[in-house]
Amino acid sequence: MAATLVSSNKIFGGFQKVFKHASSTLGSEAKFAIFLPKCDGKVPLIYWLSGLTCTEQNFITKSGAQAHAQKYGVAIVCPDTSPRNCNVPGEDDSYDLGTGAGFYVDATQEPWAKNYKMYSYVTKELPQVIEANFSEVVDTSRCSIMGHSMGGHGALICSLKNPGKYRAVSAFAPLCNPTECGWGQKAFTAYLGADRKAWSEYDATDLAKTYAGPPISALIDVGLNDEFLNDLLPDNLHRVTNDKVKVNLRKHEGYDHSYYFIATFIEEHIRMHSEALK
Amino acid sequence: MAATLVSSNKIFGGFQKVFKHASSTLGSEAKFAIFLPKCDGKVPLIYWLSGLTCTEQNFITKSGAQAHAQKYGVAIVCPDTSPRNCNVPGEDDSYDLGTGAGFYVDATQEPWAKNYKMYSYVTKELPQVIEANFSEVVDTSRCSIMGHSMGGHGALICSLKNPGKYRAVSAFAPLCNPTECGWGQKAFTAYLGADRKAWSEYDATDLAKTYAGPPISALIDVGLNDEFLNDLLPDNLHRVTNDKVKVNLRKHEGYDHSYYFIATFIEEHIRMHSEALK
Repeated sequence: MAATLVSSNKIFGGFQKVFKHASSTLGSEAKFAIFLPKCDGKVPLIYWLSGLTCTEQNFITKSGAQAHAQKYGVAIVCPDTSPRNCNVPGEDDSYDLGTGAGFYVDATQEPWAKNYKMYSYVTKELPQVIEANFSEVVDTSRCSIMGHSMGGHGALICSLKNPGKYRAVSAFAPLCNPTECGWGQKAFTAYLGADRKAWSEYDATDLAKTYAGPPISALIDVGLNDEFLNDLLPDNLHRVTNDKVKVNLRKHEGYDHSYYFIATFIEEHIRMHSEALK
Repeated sequence: MAATLVSSNKIFGGFQKVFKHASSTLGSEAKFAIFLPKCDGKVPLIYWLSGLTCTEQNFITKSGAQAHAQKYGVAIVCPDTSPRNCNVPGEDDSYDLGTGAGFYVDATQEPWAKNYKMYSYVTKELPQVIEANFSEVVDTSRCSIMGHSMGGHGALICSLKNPGKYRAVSAFAPLCNPTECGWGQKAFTAYLGADRKAWSEYDATDLAKTYAGPPISALIDVGLNDEFLNDLLPDNLHRVTNDKVKVNLRKHEGYDHSYYFIATFIEEHIRMHSEALK
């Protein structure tokens, strides 16, 4: 569970750090970023899951989140988006499968099954690594989750599959119904096989229909100028809203899929999470 | 003077745009970024000059400046850091000379003299391009200048060489005395030749000694954990402070040379500029 410091930069009084560790779940070295605000006492934790092609770097360099994480007194952990350098055949052949495209599932199909276990990594191993290395400054019992695009999908399914584990969930431009869009169908076929029943276990819209845990209220922001809007299908998820799963879907005129959109609304997400984490 | 739109992204209600145009000064295509806040009426303009290896992209993706430019109602223009693809022999051989390293001088030596005219580009051609394309929304008569590292040097010399042109000047980790540091000596030798008298025309510390225009007050932030602190020589500039040139030099414990440092203090710079631009 040891993690090795890769970089550390002071920002807004706190520190943006990057660590690497040997991940037993992924069978590879894994990097993650953690922002630690300057605070007295332990702070709660938000997990951020990034989108296709991203690493642990995108959010920490482009979102401007640290100003708000410092203001509201929360740590933010950003894992990578897939295992890397596993020598899986085809892992580097396309941007939307393999490296940079773990889709936050546990693959069951060859050649992916050995390494592509991002769901277990994010929900089990990474929290243990954080607990083992940061328990003096982070209260890991208080956590929440958010993400962007493929990572927005990841945040929604992690929350829906683990009732009570995450105190808040939100997403920017998430893939809300991946079994019904091209990206999800390609990745789920490769990682989970042809049987669509297995896909439903990782589809937020399907999971929301049968969710039976404590009530969840998900904040979802999408831009109406998002070039991938037709793949996100936020209305499909919104339509299954029920007593257990509320979806606060906000559609923003003129915004696109980029980090410029994320930067604009990230403070509202962090404030919402910090209130749930108090 | 026509400029062609390369990209446009909505952020914080305004738009972050990138344009390209044929630069007669540089003899090449040149890109620049411009943030246009959502405002009634014309807004003043801050020029941002970036450091070594940067393009027009670094500041707009990493600084978080747009939130503050929107709040204070200012446009921000970011030129590239050099001409590009000019087929100058050696232009891509090192990170600190040629491409990405224009040093905001007008080169007089071969093979650079034809294209490497970033001083004239920033102070003359670019303002004309902005006026020609954005005069309906930007009041180009009210402008100021700031920058980082090599671009901090650029901001300081542009201000000192053009009394009254820029209503405010500030810099993050600027090369304050480039004739006395390795980067500056290498670049000035190549661009300006062996005669150090020519170098003084582009050295903020030398220029400050003889500056005779309206009083200038320069805000300069440096991080005490800056890995290049020995090359920046801010004390050399601070030491020549006089009635005409005041230097508000702030040294920040723990901060380094990165955009994490810039992001932390950029709001204070933009606020200072916006007050001078009112």
